[in-house]
Amino acid sequence: MIGVAVLGSTGSVGTNTLRVLARHRDRFRVVALTAYDSADLLKRQAREAGAAFVGLVQGTGVAGTGMGEGCLVEAATHADVKIVVNAIVGAAGLPATLAALRAGKRVALANKETLVMAGDLVLEAARRGGGEIVPIDSEHSAVLQCVTGARAGTLRRLILTASGGPFRDWPAERLAGATVKEALNHPTWRMGPKITLDSATLVNKALEVIEGHFLFGLGYEAIDVVVHPQSIVHGLAEFTDGSVLAQVGFPTMELPILYALTHPERLPDDGTRRFDPVAAGPLTFEPLRRDAFPAFGLGVNAGCNGGTAPAVFNAANEVAVEACLAGRLAFGRIPDVIARVLEAHDVQPAGDLAVVLAADRWARERAEAACS
Amino acid sequence: MIGVAVLGSTGSVGTNTLRVLARHRDRFRVVALTAYDSADLLKRQAREAGAAFVGLVQGTGVAGTGMGEGCLVEAATHADVKIVVNAIVGAAGLPATLAALRAGKRVALANKETLVMAGDLVLEAARRGGGEIVPIDSEHSAVLQCVTGARAGTLRRLILTASGGPFRDWPAERLAGATVKEALNHPTWRMGPKITLDSATLVNKALEVIEGHFLFGLGYEAIDVVVHPQSIVHGLAEFTDGSVLAQVGFPTMELPILYALTHPERLPDDGTRRFDPVAAGPLTFEPLRRDAFPAFGLGVNAGCNGGTAPAVFNAANEVAVEACLAGRLAFGRIPDVIARVLEAHDVQPAGDLAVVLAADRWARERAEAACS
Repeated sequence: MIGVAVLGSTGSVGTNTLRVLARHRDRFRVVALTAYDSADLLKRQAREAGAAFVGLVQGTGVAGTGMGEGCLVEAATHADVKIVVNAIVGAAGLPATLAALRAGKRVALANKETLVMAGDLVLEAARRGGGEIVPIDSEHSAVLQCVTGARAGTLRRLILTASGGPFRDWPAERLAGATVKEALNHPTWRMGPKITLDSATLVNKALEVIEGHFLFGLGYEAIDVVVHPQSIVHGLAEFTDGSVLAQVGFPTMELPILYALTHPERLPDDGTRRFDPVAAGPLTFEPLRRDAFPAFGLGVNAGCNGGTAPAVFNAANEVAVEACLAGRLAFGRIPDVIARVLEAHDVQPAGDLAVVLAADRWARERAEAACS
Repeated sequence: MIGVAVLGSTGSVGTNTLRVLARHRDRFRVVALTAYDSADLLKRQAREAGAAFVGLVQGTGVAGTGMGEGCLVEAATHADVKIVVNAIVGAAGLPATLAALRAGKRVALANKETLVMAGDLVLEAARRGGGEIVPIDSEHSAVLQCVTGARAGTLRRLILTASGGPFRDWPAERLAGATVKEALNHPTWRMGPKITLDSATLVNKALEVIEGHFLFGLGYEAIDVVVHPQSIVHGLAEFTDGSVLAQVGFPTMELPILYALTHPERLPDDGTRRFDPVAAGPLTFEPLRRDAFPAFGLGVNAGCNGGTAPAVFNAANEVAVEACLAGRLAFGRIPDVIARVLEAHDVQPAGDLAVVLAADRWARERAEAACS
């Protein structure tokens, strides 16, 4: 029995994870669950899964609970846990990722922001502690599945697909007036509000490019993005001989979650809709409109600049998204906020966590100011 | 340096193979070449590649040549050869495949007919002799690339793609009057005349289903075919967890040939067009019209029946195709000829080669009679 901690269990990836785990109780045991402030749902989940440890970051009302931010690290380093599913949204997931990796756990990572903020530090923690990172993001799971079994050094290029979000074909001038409500209406994926907004600005895709750089060790020139509105081809891997493998399927998070738990093995599972290319309909691909979605280029540039730049990009975006969801910032202004913070930032090498966290704090303050 | 024999070097797969080998002279050495009767081209190829052994099945005029059918086995078992590229068309390739496998060689197999005729015997020869079969067919190469590195027993289903051939969308009544010239005009692949006709009747796809059964050890109920007119997705593998991998790319035989030479490794190669999903255009998938292409179902049924049935299906088809190319049989009558021969056949277990060859001879005689 493999012990699993699910951080962020009440969110979209968290509930999908519990559904997958419920189908495989013979193999996995839910040891720890944490949530931000959804106490009622967390209590119900803990009862159903029989979790030994329950953590609530904000609020009260869950008996026998770890409280506050510290409960995340507590859950992530629990002695009975082998796999930590990190489904926390945003930078808040970083300490738990680092702690789990240092403790030699596998981190099934949906919290791409932590890898973006501090990729080198996260990889180093894994190396030192004997932990490993397995992506849950469907695009990176796709690539991982394509390269599993391939010889080291034979991966030449990644192609990450992007649905293009709800504004894929909107003219730039119309985009300027897009509302949050329109942005939250994703065409192919049902996800939490933060990642859905990130998909509408294509910030999410920039974060994934940076994530791909760290996960697969490729330079940014070897990571392409192509818009694929149907979200059927999740990611492609080009090898040194020119051959390209892809992972395909109807959109579901359950499959990449299951794979992150079992990689490099696979478990028999009938819980997801069987793929049928005919029912999938025509698959189309188009270039990403960088002009219409300037936040994408800002993110990729931040990745290329390295050091603290990706952390600053991420922090500025988190603040802008929060302001946007709270009605304090127009959707169309998110890229401006990010751009202004990045312009003002003096990039530092991200050699230790204090530098990264300082850059993150600095960027949040700047972004808050830029939002008002 | 890995010694390579190319059987059928003057045909379509053969010339593609020599092009690939010419790019990798540091790794591969052409030891032996054979052709059916194209003496001039064979001589030129042998000179350019510096082949030590040259074999011509039919005709004269090549100095220092092995002559007659025996030259195929001679080339396939040459002491300096490690990989035999079997690009012979039809049943004539069987003895060389068996001999090479018994001698412990890798057979890079474009000659799917031999696996269809005598799949169990071919697999047994490989087991006993320590040889191995690696497919060159783009569909099977795709699947092999998808499953390389996967744990045994995790492949659940194959999906082979079919371009649908030149008559993909022809109504059945129009198909009855299709000419050989029209059948030879394949929409996406440039190939030799036999396989091109087989693609027009979809016999080729039935042969590939049978080939897939033997190569990947799946039952026929686990092998699906889907029509994909663009020939970009070459084959798909569904795993036990429901995940599906695919190999994709612009149509070229050079890539599967290179992979058959290097599997499970890959060699850096820039000789093929880099894949670009946008340039590939929309990818569409549709069900195979079994009613319009009855030869497909005949072949799959023969595969399910097993024993000598696939050999009889193959032999009847070879005779019908030859008659068709010679102008002795209307294109539309190929399925009738195959059906009549299969109906008259009393299926035997294919436990030894003599039984298979007898069934093959019997079917050829029957088919000749049915063609006239």
